[in-house]
Amino acid sequence: MTPEEFRAAGHALIDWIADHRTRVPDLPVMSQVTPGQVAARLAPHAPAQPQPFDDVLADLDQVVVPGVTQTQHPAFFGWFPSNATLSSVLGDIASSGVAALGITWQSAPALTEVEEVVTDWLRELTGLSPAWKGAIQDTASSACLVAMLAARERVTGYGETRGGLQAEPAPLVVYTSPQAHSSVPKAVLLAGFGADNLRFVDVDPVTYAMRPQALRAAMEADVAAGRRPTAVVVAIGTTGSTAMDPLAELAPIAAEFGAWVHVDAAMAGSAMLLPECRHLFDGVEGADSLSWNPHKWMGTILDCALLYVRDVEHLVRVMSTNPSYLRSAVDGEVTQYKDWGIPLGRRFRALKLWFQLRLDGVDAIRARLRRDLANAGWLAGQVAAEPGWRLVAPLTLQTVCLRHEPAGLVAPDGTVLDAEALDRHTLAWVNAVNASGQAFLSASTLDGRWMVRVSVGAEATERADVARLWDLIRRTAESSTS
Amino acid sequence: MTPEEFRAAGHALIDWIADHRTRVPDLPVMSQVTPGQVAARLAPHAPAQPQPFDDVLADLDQVVVPGVTQTQHPAFFGWFPSNATLSSVLGDIASSGVAALGITWQSAPALTEVEEVVTDWLRELTGLSPAWKGAIQDTASSACLVAMLAARERVTGYGETRGGLQAEPAPLVVYTSPQAHSSVPKAVLLAGFGADNLRFVDVDPVTYAMRPQALRAAMEADVAAGRRPTAVVVAIGTTGSTAMDPLAELAPIAAEFGAWVHVDAAMAGSAMLLPECRHLFDGVEGADSLSWNPHKWMGTILDCALLYVRDVEHLVRVMSTNPSYLRSAVDGEVTQYKDWGIPLGRRFRALKLWFQLRLDGVDAIRARLRRDLANAGWLAGQVAAEPGWRLVAPLTLQTVCLRHEPAGLVAPDGTVLDAEALDRHTLAWVNAVNASGQAFLSASTLDGRWMVRVSVGAEATERADVARLWDLIRRTAESSTS
Repeated sequence: MTPEEFRAAGHALIDWIADHRTRVPDLPVMSQVTPGQVAARLAPHAPAQPQPFDDVLADLDQVVVPGVTQTQHPAFFGWFPSNATLSSVLGDIASSGVAALGITWQSAPALTEVEEVVTDWLRELTGLSPAWKGAIQDTASSACLVAMLAARERVTGYGETRGGLQAEPAPLVVYTSPQAHSSVPKAVLLAGFGADNLRFVDVDPVTYAMRPQALRAAMEADVAAGRRPTAVVVAIGTTGSTAMDPLAELAPIAAEFGAWVHVDAAMAGSAMLLPECRHLFDGVEGADSLSWNPHKWMGTILDCALLYVRDVEHLVRVMSTNPSYLRSAVDGEVTQYKDWGIPLGRRFRALKLWFQLRLDGVDAIRARLRRDLANAGWLAGQVAAEPGWRLVAPLTLQTVCLRHEPAGLVAPDGTVLDAEALDRHTLAWVNAVNASGQAFLSASTLDGRWMVRVSVGAEATERADVARLWDLIRRTAESSTS
Repeated sequence: MTPEEFRAAGHALIDWIADHRTRVPDLPVMSQVTPGQVAARLAPHAPAQPQPFDDVLADLDQVVVPGVTQTQHPAFFGWFPSNATLSSVLGDIASSGVAALGITWQSAPALTEVEEVVTDWLRELTGLSPAWKGAIQDTASSACLVAMLAARERVTGYGETRGGLQAEPAPLVVYTSPQAHSSVPKAVLLAGFGADNLRFVDVDPVTYAMRPQALRAAMEADVAAGRRPTAVVVAIGTTGSTAMDPLAELAPIAAEFGAWVHVDAAMAGSAMLLPECRHLFDGVEGADSLSWNPHKWMGTILDCALLYVRDVEHLVRVMSTNPSYLRSAVDGEVTQYKDWGIPLGRRFRALKLWFQLRLDGVDAIRARLRRDLANAGWLAGQVAAEPGWRLVAPLTLQTVCLRHEPAGLVAPDGTVLDAEALDRHTLAWVNAVNASGQAFLSASTLDGRWMVRVSVGAEATERADVARLWDLIRRTAESSTS
């Protein structure tokens, strides 16, 4: 394809994107396709000859869009905000257009240095001290794995250069909350620690936050048994209920035992942009690593997760490679991001952060986050005041955890009369809401019971959208007979 | 940013990309900036207020482009072809525009099913049997790590669910070529095996391909010592010289010992698109996993690496998570790519493959690869025929490994008279070529001596560009006095 053919097709595609964004509010929020329906509409073999761009563009409308749950919809309240601000989309397009190869500093000095600068902008904006250095990862899952590998190598004195984990004399143990994201146990298992050496530390029955005394007790028991505490993964914002593990109390305990502290703030990290929310991160300067995802609430289009570490030299020592074909005369003077994570090659993802921050400005981003906090607070107030409805976890940021508890299933004092029927009722009404296409919510379990998470924070979501949702879920749940 | 503001800015950006691509041949190939020069031109803090799009666009020209080594330049012969065909750039832009969240099938059924279909298209196009299933990864580095983790868990019977690698009674050992890519030892170390349990198997002194008898001997020695052969990483196309490990001989040996076979064909995998090159992959059906990068020679814009496996159920068992908030009614019927790799979230990367294959057509892609093979063959012929120049490794695909060996440094029979001076000479002339901005090449070591790799295969590179390069390097090397 020539640049002129690209120009023509590209203009059509930009118009398609702008039109698509305009009509997103009219689309069903949850994709209505059934398994295999998209695949059945695709050709069984790749074409030998070129096809017209118009055909491909038409397939975006007819095949792709119906097969996408619309996270940019104002009634998207599922999982977590997965915002793709159009300013960041422009940055993503610029990244594709520049087509840089990020393998070493030399292959694209700008890719490295823009990433250094924008991660430092965000460090400053989130109130972290200059002791932290940041890099962009694809996801918080990968960031957590990198942190677990760094922790493993720190406690073993770089055992990877000798017999590896299999040569370690005493088991290494990792601690986290049972409410932690599924990527945390996954990272622990992939790093080789083994499920037997992963401790799910007790949480508070009301806040669902990790109990410091329980952490201490678990670590003491392991030490007494000859095991070595290696890492504590602290959730600032658990996935289920956005519970806040008390980092200021947990980090000093971990430090006593020499354990690495990784803070997983994938969703909630955006709140650090607001000075009034930073108390949730008290103690963060005692952590070793922190990850949060601008690609969630802040609104940088996926994928853009940040990993900050305090000791870059340690990370580099664990992750570095230095083959002859990648050496250059400036190696000692520059950052080589290939040595800060798993992949060698990287896209120019810093551009989407750079574009978003410059085109939107920080004030507007902060105003939007505050709007979402207020909207979530409004909804929580409605739920708390409504008979038959209950907030099942404290509201810490923008995720309202609720349940409809009809009189026949739950007694006035909150005693569950028929747990299975209550679960069936919860799943029935949330599935009905989702199937309607009018809004999308996630069900999740807490204390073994299904509840519903209303994650407020889509860029397009205003108070009126939250009010409409509240009407919709009341009507749906209260008329549900299952 | 509103859709209409995006529309206006997007059109300007498309024009910028088309213009940029048009002028790439006039830019220096290697970025000429010095360390810190890009960072010094960026603002020290993020702006509070929005900045005009024109300012950001101007910075692409003034700050970003000078800081990028131009891999799309017709005189780019460095590292490996890092093509970003404009058809795939359109697909990447469409991915940004659709803004899908890829965490489960339900979050974007089309993201999953297009990926299933296009990876199956490429399976068929590369001659792999239907026993293989593919998924897109960011890079071959991550793909190799996933393969090492799968191998580790297979040999231990899913030890991750018990005591992990640290509870294994006998050391697990991995085998690869000393010519393997740096990501292979990195993956082995990150997976916890330890450097002591990584064997670099001898290679043939002429072809630099792994010697099957050496592999067998190493595995037998380990078994005799009570260690467990776990995986063999076979390079189809080593990074240094594109050496071809003899997979058809190696895979049966690995099978005898129950070891996982991972084929790393990151660059060379594109050659499987050509039936006449598939003999290089003989024996592939005896492997367990294979990775290759459409984002290299085939020309899908970074990042787009493929990982094919034969036993998806095993991969899923190692990688899966199933938290309540991600469950849906169709879980048993659909592919959940989150369980095929490390990250939970994924971009809609399948679109760039889909766009490229449809907009360019397979015939044109194959014709381009054949053009590159012919151009590399022509250059190798020139080098072989030219006094004072030597091909230092057999030409297997499109990477010509050469050295200028002036009479004072190398005797007519090939004996190196002054090894250090020869290395200085090699580095001096290749650095002079790169610094000129007229072409870009990579130096690499082979048998401990520096040589120069001419990796032919940039999309824009025609025979005339290769001929110009040959003139340039002869002039530069033959006039170099260092």
